Amino acid sequence: MKNCLFCKIAKKEIPANIVYEDEEVVAFLDLSQITDGHTLIVPKTHSRNLLETNQDTVNSLMHAVNKVSEILGSRLNAKGFNIISNINEEAGQSVFHTHIHVIPRYNKEEFDYKYNSREITQKHLSLLMDKITRS
Amino acid sequence: MKNCLFCKIAKKEIPANIVYEDEEVVAFLDLSQITDGHTLIVPKTHSRNLLETNQDTVNSLMHAVNKVSEILGSRLNAKGFNIISNINEEAGQSVFHTHIHVIPRYNKEEFDYKYNSREITQKHLSLLMDKITRS
Repeated sequence: MKNCLFCKIAKKEIPANIVYEDEEVVAFLDLSQITDGHTLIVPKTHSRNLLETNQDTVNSLMHAVNKVSEILGSRLNAKGFNIISNINEEAGQSVFHTHIHVIPRYNKEEFDYKYNSREITQKHLSLLMDKITRS
Repeated sequence: MKNCLFCKIAKKEIPANIVYEDEEVVAFLDLSQITDGHTLIVPKTHSRNLLETNQDTVNSLMHAVNKVSEILGSRLNAKGFNIISNINEEAGQSVFHTHIHVIPRYNKEEFDYKYNSREITQKHLSLLMDKITRS
């Protein structure tokens, strides 16, 4: 959709730190990085939210949840994950292109359901991408 | 699985306030009721978490997310939803049978990413079930 940020990322018109991609979806680091490796998975075809997405595409998104979690587990040593999709403004949705958050968690003592954005530098994102994409 | 709370609910060995059910899944009111209508969707076949669930069952769970959201939208007038699955103790998982939270939201002014349990009476749950199941 025109002027949709996540459509532009999916079409590579705007750069992003891509963690995983297949025919149906693209997954990239969220700039808010609630935790290191916090990733958004979006369908390449525009829909407003998860409930307005056709079931085949939802299935592709959920397949990607597994792939992204595997990558964050093996590359960043994530031990747990919050898988979240917010639907409509009343539930905190702020970008109106369907997306699923994968928020890796590393330590059960630190976990307290904090969902706060952090101030993240481009250098920090680059270091994460180095870990995620190194062969 | 023996001694698994959600297996027992799925087998009707323990009563629950059932919002939706099909061959693969059962959805029931979470006793913590973060908001009115807060529902858990679980597969009838035991798995530990969403990442350890076979893809067909994940697809059934996501189909049920749509069904439950429709019900909560039409019966309780929910305007938005947080769809959440926590994987492993590091991410706050406390019952180790796969479950997806559907947390309805009613008012964007009230929303602040609070995920606090509430003290809920059986009477309150019964009133919700009356609204959800009335014909």
